[in-house]
Amino acid sequence: MSEVDPIKQAVQHLRRLPGVGDKTATRLVYWMLRAPEGTIPELSASLLRLAEEVRQCSVCGDLTGTDPCAMCADPRRDDALVCVVEHPQDVLAFERSGEFRGRYHILHGAISPLDGIGPSDLNLRSLLERLRGGQIKEVIIATDPDVEGDATALYIGRLLAGVDVQVTRLAHGISVGTEIEYADAVSLARALQNRRPL
Amino acid sequence: MSEVDPIKQAVQHLRRLPGVGDKTATRLVYWMLRAPEGTIPELSASLLRLAEEVRQCSVCGDLTGTDPCAMCADPRRDDALVCVVEHPQDVLAFERSGEFRGRYHILHGAISPLDGIGPSDLNLRSLLERLRGGQIKEVIIATDPDVEGDATALYIGRLLAGVDVQVTRLAHGISVGTEIEYADAVSLARALQNRRPL
Repeated sequence: MSEVDPIKQAVQHLRRLPGVGDKTATRLVYWMLRAPEGTIPELSASLLRLAEEVRQCSVCGDLTGTDPCAMCADPRRDDALVCVVEHPQDVLAFERSGEFRGRYHILHGAISPLDGIGPSDLNLRSLLERLRGGQIKEVIIATDPDVEGDATALYIGRLLAGVDVQVTRLAHGISVGTEIEYADAVSLARALQNRRPL
Repeated sequence: MSEVDPIKQAVQHLRRLPGVGDKTATRLVYWMLRAPEGTIPELSASLLRLAEEVRQCSVCGDLTGTDPCAMCADPRRDDALVCVVEHPQDVLAFERSGEFRGRYHILHGAISPLDGIGPSDLNLRSLLERLRGGQIKEVIIATDPDVEGDATALYIGRLLAGVDVQVTRLAHGISVGTEIEYADAVSLARALQNRRPL
C-alpha cells in the first residue's frame, strides 16, 4: 500500500482536470465512494483504456481505438470530400450537425507563431498523401474562425494550389438564432461580406 | 480489446459523475488524451485505490485508507470531546475551521422516514461503544440544521440521556459575513432565539 492517503491522492489527481478545483474533486471522490459497486473500477479501467488503446488514425489523424478509425473505415462515407479540422472534437461537432457525409482530416492544432507552432507541427503530410490517391475532389477547410485558424486555412490553400482539387472554406456569418442586436461585430462584418442573393 | 470504442466508453463512464454532462465528459477525455504521459495511469490507479483501500474506520466510521483512521490514531487530539457529524465531508469542514481538536464520529446519514432511513441505519452503535470507554466528557451534535438533522440530533439526545456525558448542539444563527438584510428568515429567527449577552 502506498504511503499517501488514498482519498487525498484521488483528490489531488482529480484536481488536475480542467475546471475541477479542490471542492469539486472532493465532492467527486465522496460521491464515488458511495456509488454502486463497480462504478470506480469501471471508470478506472475505461480511463486506462484511453492511455493504452487510443492512438492517431494513420489515415486522418483522428484519435481512435482502431486503425484506421471507424470514420475512415466506413464504406458509406463519401471519399470525394474531406473536411479539414483542427481538433478531434471538431469532428464530433460536424457529426452532430448531420450535414456532412464525407471524410475528415485532423490537423491537431493551428499555425500559431506565438506558441511556436508551425506548419510542420500539423498533420499535413498525410493530407498530401491522401490527395495523391486522386479520389478526393474537394477539401473543405474548417479551421476555427480566429487568427490561427485563418492563417492555417491560408497556408493549406497555398499548399494545395498545385493539386487538382477544389479547396473551400466554411462560411462565416452570424449564428442561427443570433439576434442581430447582440451579434458580435466581426461575425456581422463577415455576414455582410458573404451575403448571398435571396 | 473490448468492442466499445475507448473514447466513447470513457465519456459514458465520466458522465455518471455528478455535475458532469456529455460536453464536460468529452472535454475531460480529450484533455486527458493530450495530457502529459502518466496523467491517465496515475488518475486511473488513484481511483482504483479508492475502491480497494478505503473502508470505514472501526472507531469513528470515517472513510479512510487505514484502520483506525489518522484522526482516531492521532495522540494529540482530545479524547474527551467527540463531534458527531452526518458525513465524512463534514469532518473536512471542521478541520478547515481549525477550531476543533477533539475526535469525530460519522453517522453516515440522518434520520429521514421519507427516505426510509431510521436510527438503525446510522453508525450509532459504535458511538455507544465509544461512550462506554468513559473517556468522553462531551458529545457535540453537529448534524445539518435541517429537518433530518434536527430529528437526528433529538434522537441522539434522548439516546444519550442515561449516559454520563454532556450533550451539546452546534449553535445556529446568521453566518459570519451575512448582511442582515439578506439573511434567511429561519437563520435570523434562530439567531434571535440564541442571542447572547454582549
